[in-house]
Amino acid sequence: MALGRLSDQQRRDAVLAMASALEAEADTIVAANQQDLEAAAADGLPSALVARLKLDTMKLQGAIAGVRQVADLPDPVGVRQLHRELDDGLLLERFSVPLGVLGVIFEARPDAVMQIASLAIRSGNGAILKGGREASRSCAAILQALQEGLKASAVSAQALDLLTSREESLALLKLDGLVDLIIPRGSNELVRFIQDNTRIPVLGHADGICHLYVDQEVDLAQAVRIAVDAKTQYPAACNAIETLLLHRLTAEAFLDQALPVFRQAGVQLRGDAASQALGIKVAADDSDWSTEFSDLVLSVRVVADLEEALEHIRRYGSRHTDAICTTNADTAETFLRSVDSAGVYWNCSTRFADGFRYGFGAEVGISTQTLPPRGPVGLEGLVTYRYQLRGDGHIAADYASGVRSFTHRDLPL
Amino acid sequence: MALGRLSDQQRRDAVLAMASALEAEADTIVAANQQDLEAAAADGLPSALVARLKLDTMKLQGAIAGVRQVADLPDPVGVRQLHRELDDGLLLERFSVPLGVLGVIFEARPDAVMQIASLAIRSGNGAILKGGREASRSCAAILQALQEGLKASAVSAQALDLLTSREESLALLKLDGLVDLIIPRGSNELVRFIQDNTRIPVLGHADGICHLYVDQEVDLAQAVRIAVDAKTQYPAACNAIETLLLHRLTAEAFLDQALPVFRQAGVQLRGDAASQALGIKVAADDSDWSTEFSDLVLSVRVVADLEEALEHIRRYGSRHTDAICTTNADTAETFLRSVDSAGVYWNCSTRFADGFRYGFGAEVGISTQTLPPRGPVGLEGLVTYRYQLRGDGHIAADYASGVRSFTHRDLPL
Repeated sequence: MALGRLSDQQRRDAVLAMASALEAEADTIVAANQQDLEAAAADGLPSALVARLKLDTMKLQGAIAGVRQVADLPDPVGVRQLHRELDDGLLLERFSVPLGVLGVIFEARPDAVMQIASLAIRSGNGAILKGGREASRSCAAILQALQEGLKASAVSAQALDLLTSREESLALLKLDGLVDLIIPRGSNELVRFIQDNTRIPVLGHADGICHLYVDQEVDLAQAVRIAVDAKTQYPAACNAIETLLLHRLTAEAFLDQALPVFRQAGVQLRGDAASQALGIKVAADDSDWSTEFSDLVLSVRVVADLEEALEHIRRYGSRHTDAICTTNADTAETFLRSVDSAGVYWNCSTRFADGFRYGFGAEVGISTQTLPPRGPVGLEGLVTYRYQLRGDGHIAADYASGVRSFTHRDLPL
Repeated sequence: MALGRLSDQQRRDAVLAMASALEAEADTIVAANQQDLEAAAADGLPSALVARLKLDTMKLQGAIAGVRQVADLPDPVGVRQLHRELDDGLLLERFSVPLGVLGVIFEARPDAVMQIASLAIRSGNGAILKGGREASRSCAAILQALQEGLKASAVSAQALDLLTSREESLALLKLDGLVDLIIPRGSNELVRFIQDNTRIPVLGHADGICHLYVDQEVDLAQAVRIAVDAKTQYPAACNAIETLLLHRLTAEAFLDQALPVFRQAGVQLRGDAASQALGIKVAADDSDWSTEFSDLVLSVRVVADLEEALEHIRRYGSRHTDAICTTNADTAETFLRSVDSAGVYWNCSTRFADGFRYGFGAEVGISTQTLPPRGPVGLEGLVTYRYQLRGDGHIAADYASGVRSFTHRDLPL
């Protein structure tokens, strides 16, 4: 039966069945991952990649718990978004419906298979998954378990499919009309390659170049605390800041307090001429303003005022998340209204840009596209909507001739 | 001042100023259009194109009234869509915001300039417009008036721009990151060309291949009335039906009633073998199922049951609008849940798929994309959203360490 017709409970049960099957096949999955790890060692894979590839019993149990949590999320399908009488007996409704088929392309992260597959099924979508070559045995074992689980449910096992070759992956990008959304999970290079090679909408982001602007009127201690958190709490994250913009009247006092803290945290600062004059040792070159360091590196620039800060963000930002530290509410509101990013923050760390922290329960990814869904995307990003119109013989000619006319009366949702 | 920062009233006033300026320049505009019409006559332009190109005083007054109506539409910007306490003093909100810059490409329809320009300004967006060469003088006169109007408002006259050459138009399609949405208004060929030549999201549709399925359990007289309206009320519209699917047990009785009515309405029917046996004279060939006739031509096919009808729509439909005529509520619900089109209708004409009829006040276009916005799109399609987070020194490290934890409490919208 088509996934789109299944009930909330049927899709919920299917996700729980997937979790149970993963539990039943845990030994097989961990053994397959062990083989992938041995091959990776033989190939001399970088240790960061190996860490992401590794799926031991504990990590697997965590992932299975995550699948069960997805089952518990509220149903994103069938939500009535519009309810309007167009005329007596002519009723318009708009309901959320699944997108259809997701194409998911990820690098060596076998846990991503479980996460995305459960989100897809929960929201009534099929998914075609393509993992990195390094994780091929792990992914195959996981997918077999997931399909076993589906066989014990109302969802067809064919709702999930795994691609194995690079050729298939390229072909996936060309399936306009069959695949409705591509979700890349991996490096900026992977995402950019995919965006450049498909006409299917892509949910995600390449760069995450986030800014923190420290205003002239500011609680300095708080601003330092936020800057350090936004840079160091997890520097590899896309929502970590890459550039600090300092109002010229606050730069010296801020750096006086911040320099020792950054030094202690192991952060390398790269400054423009003005901030070098205030104690930053390394010069920032032009490319530093548009680089996602993903590391304990931070570029620093002194600006004349808010407008120059806004101009810098417009020019170099990636529309991900940008923050201001200020005690002046008017300045803050101007910033929040002017910066055209998915997230605009006042007096808090950019690291909050995350589906779990926003309370979405699970995250598909973070999108920096202009059109929705943007920002951290939860299950809501995996549905679209459809208009239903119910009549009793209503025809357009009667309204064109004036025999009947529209009432356009909104009804309770 | 940046458009995105202006208030509802400022944008409303700007649209009214545009309307006043159009009124003041009415003679100039009509004279420019007259020159375009003379050039078109000299070039031997087809009469359908000339009719669309023509902008006499009456048509212009109608268009100006339309601009005033757009000013009256409720503000799509600044709508709070989410309001959530993440923790004590850490407040998340999601607001609708303008998209940014619209790229509008249309064929010889000078009235479209006024419509789209007013919708763009009303929703806080800039617009770069490119009209057909045939309408160049009309468009230039209209744009000059619109910019004059903006000069008397808080909106910069530069918010609207007109491109004149084909080279500029092609360049427009490459402006990812500067142009946020392309809106094509014209033939299927124009739309398809644009979709094939840009990575910017395109709001619109190429084909509109709409179906009407007449079930076995049906009010025959009503079904005939709906079929005739859906085909003939305005056959050139994208929401007119192109194919009629008849349940095998109802086909004969339906055609008995319908054939004389279609004949009288001048509709040419093209049937499969089964429907030819029931009196349809012209054979449908395979291409007829995927052709948008945009004319008084209708292909007819007899199907074994609902499933075969659904399969036909899946295969040949364009996800625009499809309808069922049935007296069986279960059958109707299955149809409404299974057909993956922007509009799914029960016992009414597909011709209702239209922004004005849905009560949106004005229509940007109709989208057959899977992702929102889809179906008839009003002002709502010209906005996206942005997350605002306000804190008081909140940092992520405190939640990672467990010193603080999220409350995730939804607040009133």
